[in-house]
Amino acid sequence: MRVPMQFLSDNAAAVHPRVWQAMRAADESDSPYDGDATSVALDERFSDLFGRECVALWVATGTAANCLALATMVQPHGGVVCHEEAHIEMDEGGAPGFYLHGAKLLLARGEGAKIDVDAIKATIDPIRDDVHQVQPHAISVTQASEYGCSYRPGEIAAISELARDRSLGLHMDGARFANAVAFLDCSPGEAAGPIDALSFGCVKNGGMSAEAIVFFDTVLADVARYRRKRSGHLQSKGRFLAAQLHAMLKNDLWLDNARHANASAAEIASACQERLIHPVEANELFVRCTADEREALRKQGFGFYDWGADAARFVTAWNTPDNAVRALAKVISRL
Amino acid sequence: MRVPMQFLSDNAAAVHPRVWQAMRAADESDSPYDGDATSVALDERFSDLFGRECVALWVATGTAANCLALATMVQPHGGVVCHEEAHIEMDEGGAPGFYLHGAKLLLARGEGAKIDVDAIKATIDPIRDDVHQVQPHAISVTQASEYGCSYRPGEIAAISELARDRSLGLHMDGARFANAVAFLDCSPGEAAGPIDALSFGCVKNGGMSAEAIVFFDTVLADVARYRRKRSGHLQSKGRFLAAQLHAMLKNDLWLDNARHANASAAEIASACQERLIHPVEANELFVRCTADEREALRKQGFGFYDWGADAARFVTAWNTPDNAVRALAKVISRL
Amino acid sequence: MRVPMQFLSDNAAAVHPRVWQAMRAADESDSPYDGDATSVALDERFSDLFGRECVALWVATGTAANCLALATMVQPHGGVVCHEEAHIEMDEGGAPGFYLHGAKLLLARGEGAKIDVDAIKATIDPIRDDVHQVQPHAISVTQASEYGCSYRPGEIAAISELARDRSLGLHMDGARFANAVAFLDCSPGEAAGPIDALSFGCVKNGGMSAEAIVFFDTVLADVARYRRKRSGHLQSKGRFLAAQLHAMLKNDLWLDNARHANASAAEIASACQERLIHPVEANELFVRCTADEREALRKQGFGFYDWGADAARFVTAWNTPDNAVRALAKVISRL
Amino acid sequence: MRVPMQFLSDNAAAVHPRVWQAMRAADESDSPYDGDATSVALDERFSDLFGRECVALWVATGTAANCLALATMVQPHGGVVCHEEAHIEMDEGGAPGFYLHGAKLLLARGEGAKIDVDAIKATIDPIRDDVHQVQPHAISVTQASEYGCSYRPGEIAAISELARDRSLGLHMDGARFANAVAFLDCSPGEAAGPIDALSFGCVKNGGMSAEAIVFFDTVLADVARYRRKRSGHLQSKGRFLAAQLHAMLKNDLWLDNARHANASAAEIASACQERLIHPVEANELFVRCTADEREALRKQGFGFYDWGADAARFVTAWNTPDNAVRALAKVISRL
Repeated sequence: MRVPMQFLSDNAAAVHPRVWQAMRAADESDSPYDGDATSVALDERFSDLFGRECVALWVATGTAANCLALATMVQPHGGVVCHEEAHIEMDEGGAPGFYLHGAKLLLARGEGAKIDVDAIKATIDPIRDDVHQVQPHAISVTQASEYGCSYRPGEIAAISELARDRSLGLHMDGARFANAVAFLDCSPGEAAGPIDALSFGCVKNGGMSAEAIVFFDTVLADVARYRRKRSGHLQSKGRFLAAQLHAMLKNDLWLDNARHANASAAEIASACQERLIHPVEANELFVRCTADEREALRKQGFGFYDWGADAARFVTAWNTPDNAVRALAKVISRL
Repeated sequence: MRVPMQFLSDNAAAVHPRVWQAMRAADESDSPYDGDATSVALDERFSDLFGRECVALWVATGTAANCLALATMVQPHGGVVCHEEAHIEMDEGGAPGFYLHGAKLLLARGEGAKIDVDAIKATIDPIRDDVHQVQPHAISVTQASEYGCSYRPGEIAAISELARDRSLGLHMDGARFANAVAFLDCSPGEAAGPIDALSFGCVKNGGMSAEAIVFFDTVLADVARYRRKRSGHLQSKGRFLAAQLHAMLKNDLWLDNARHANASAAEIASACQERLIHPVEANELFVRCTADEREALRKQGFGFYDWGADAARFVTAWNTPDNAVRALAKVISRL
Repeated sequence: MRVPMQFLSDNAAAVHPRVWQAMRAADESDSPYDGDATSVALDERFSDLFGRECVALWVATGTAANCLALATMVQPHGGVVCHEEAHIEMDEGGAPGFYLHGAKLLLARGEGAKIDVDAIKATIDPIRDDVHQVQPHAISVTQASEYGCSYRPGEIAAISELARDRSLGLHMDGARFANAVAFLDCSPGEAAGPIDALSFGCVKNGGMSAEAIVFFDTVLADVARYRRKRSGHLQSKGRFLAAQLHAMLKNDLWLDNARHANASAAEIASACQERLIHPVEANELFVRCTADEREALRKQGFGFYDWGADAARFVTAWNTPDNAVRALAKVISRL
Repeated sequence: MRVPMQFLSDNAAAVHPRVWQAMRAADESDSPYDGDATSVALDERFSDLFGRECVALWVATGTAANCLALATMVQPHGGVVCHEEAHIEMDEGGAPGFYLHGAKLLLARGEGAKIDVDAIKATIDPIRDDVHQVQPHAISVTQASEYGCSYRPGEIAAISELARDRSLGLHMDGARFANAVAFLDCSPGEAAGPIDALSFGCVKNGGMSAEAIVFFDTVLADVARYRRKRSGHLQSKGRFLAAQLHAMLKNDLWLDNARHANASAAEIASACQERLIHPVEANELFVRCTADEREALRKQGFGFYDWGADAARFVTAWNTPDNAVRALAKVISRL
């Protein structure tokens, strides 16, 4: 049975009707793998979206997107700088170790699960430039971050400059990229910045089973194609993944969905401003509250995760009902 | 544009309406990953089907199913005996090397892409029992084979006995398992035989994006769960994969679909018996014909792959139209 | 040109004359790989040493020893708990990621680069028992630690009990095991404690190119044999490695060498007690001193490494000359 | 006990006295890893030898040399073309799968365990240029081959041209490169030809534990340095490996040793010309003889391996005694 007022996660929310429609329509074709017109059109579609040439590959999960992207930038003996609470470090079951053949995650710290130039330098500068220590090959940032914080274009630009100086690849985990763009109110190209590859999220935002790996360094895409097949992620009916992505991009559905989720989060945030651990810059709230308070919330039908001993995490989605949002805002403001 | 009379492959055929229905229904739930009731019910459903306890995990592709299954049986320094034209050797882009961390495929020969006890022994007996040579850890058979031939229950039993004698795991690639069961006209349990794990195909048989890995040695499933996540194959909306599998099993849709495909293949086969390279025991035909003959067929609107210089491969599917079958049978009989 | 008074490291010190003798004697045989009598006798020799059955395999480096040992305990999707400054984390160029096929190092903290039960629990207890997070499969401790601190038998016993409770393998990096035994003044079996495998160091202690992996869980050795060959560490003239190990063990040369190094370190330590960052329980000293003081020391001919901005590391070896020790003690006491 | 007249293999033969001398002399230094003058001088020494710039890294075994070299040319999703009886395929315990992270060996056929342009094309041309099949990234040839046959300079040049046309790396396994050069009576540079990397053998030719990886494409060496450490092959007393290589090259000891071994093989060959399965172009003989004949030879004190049911393999070494050679030649001619 569905929790009535669910703020557990956006990762299993319903599929948007227009995504369903597009998938049904895709059944007309029967070109296998990524040879169908829908899949082929992704490159152009994403190039339009970002205002520069790119190559886009569908995959079923964010974990696969992140790891396939990174595998094009990082040799097995190298490392990836990321935040110590990044999804690739915390929640992907060691997938980077698998896809990168044992390459290492080099952890950096930062408020709101964001990293900056200083944090990255603090991680990589102490690494001796010799064969005894794993050298960095790439940086991965998360837009929006695991704590729902969004990088400003200038922040990405600064990291990108460092990456270029040090000859490092730059990857962006955009599982919630839509929420960041909606929050930043800028173009997708500005929110992504000068990066090499982006995991463009769709599943958390009304899709079913499709994410895109968007390669701005298009040479990398050729490697990713082989690695996608090699990891069992080249689906023979890939048209159904491509269709989801097109549906999301069409008429800015992806932004509409994200705006709804963000607005829902903002409404709740405004009701508990003093309890917020991180600024709410996407669709996640990290709210200080005691075990008793959480118990009280759950009794009233709200679903969410504990976040350590003294906080709760609430996530809104494209389909979070307005009345659930209002209800939560009301209750939480009176805790 | 769709080829009018398509016999290229079954791997991109349309999705069956009852699969669509089940997927739509699954949208009601929002339990993430494999925690939804539909996913949880798979173990029982497959245990019923096979008449013995098993654990079933969904994944999106046959490549992932095969490799995750084998990864539970084979250490990185070991090897897998398979036919030299097995899918894992020929068509998975090196996925076994990736998933098995460099373990080796040990190739055996056999008519119709089937292997038997003698062929397996011919492959493994010359391997010196020392650290200089890769030792076999498992055997993989394909039911039905890449050439559309089905193993008889006694054949599997003999291989299974050898596997037990040599302490080898036994995996069955059942991308077209339904077609084999339909052809053999036996129970699924008999068609699978005493094996450790089965890749139970669904995509080629009217599904969209779900295969099942069925573990009869249920201990192996625990490892596979971790490896599935680690390979990015644990979808957060896994309920849509589980739903496809349930839809296929319900009221024997999987068998009905396979029977149609098999009957279509049989009808064509009966029209060109003397040209057949392999017995038609599933939904694939390998037909001797010259380049000119193939050209003639294509001009009349038939789609298929060349198979070397002197043959063509035709594959039928759950939705191959009867009139296309009749048309091909007629034309091919007059070549 | 050799630094006159070298305290940089013990890792490149001269080879002991008795090791040379044993190597020359080994040239008489020409049995390949590990089939020679010298290699074969290692199991018995180490079983005698530790007072319980074990299997010993030679390899050329400590990195190979550590990683081959761990590879027998840790699946690719698992993790190894170790100190955050352990050699496997800091100084092996990512070798654990390579040998363990992407398994993860799970870092714990502790004084003197030692970990204890609480530190291990602090690392592993927060790991959710689900497929999204890398589960621990083994623990690795270093005896003596990277900071020259030795685990007391009771400390190892406590960790071992935890390992047993949690079904974790237990490995000991004993690159300087001799120094720990010499310091603890106990039997080798007591210094190792109830562990599954030990990397028994020899190169830093007067050997040339041989370490032993000692498996107390002898089943693990069978896997290690295959992995040793697979990693290119099975030398065809392995008799020269076996000979080094036998020479070290004969008449307790290994302990005599370690005692000399430890005594040298102790003598220096007693001259700068108030500057010591860690207790000196082996052959390494970490000494607070300014850049100017280090400059002064170097001008007087002493070789050593800076240890951060405010300290220096001095390492003594089996052949550190007494006059160099006395000279350093004298100078350092007057800084 | 040593077999009196040993023709089993050259891989465990005694170490040459001048190698011992050089090793003893190397003990004077105590620079760690490959920072000693002896190691550093290898690049220049090998550049002189081959008459063109190269970078040379020592490693302990041929397996490590081959695999580290190939790892610089082959991505994990690629393949290496080699003879179906190449050492990397048959005798390295799956090491290429480990070092190349699951890349595949693509097997070619050829007389005398040599491959040529046609054989390579027969292997790679049928590979469809798509992601479903493993694409070749490199070619590996063995000089002299596993059957003791030497490639003529023109043969290598032709393969090299193909490699260049197809953008493939080219590696030479030169475990018995010295024997090939001695047989061909040409310069080392001619015997190697235009390749990217050579595994330069030393252990089988009077060394103890050192082979060189010689990179003619010097960019590759930088990757190999990291991979060498990562695989545990960077010995801290590497000076002893470097010393062996210098000793072998000094005054052409390597060629003198190989010439002796070759001459020994030639003398035996001339006594059983009609029985030879392969031309004798190095230091190995493959001789047709019945089980009874082999039994007779063994009774007279000759040590050698059976080679299948109807043949024997004899290998000579740098130190094979002339009287053993004469004795074998005599006996074998009378069989």
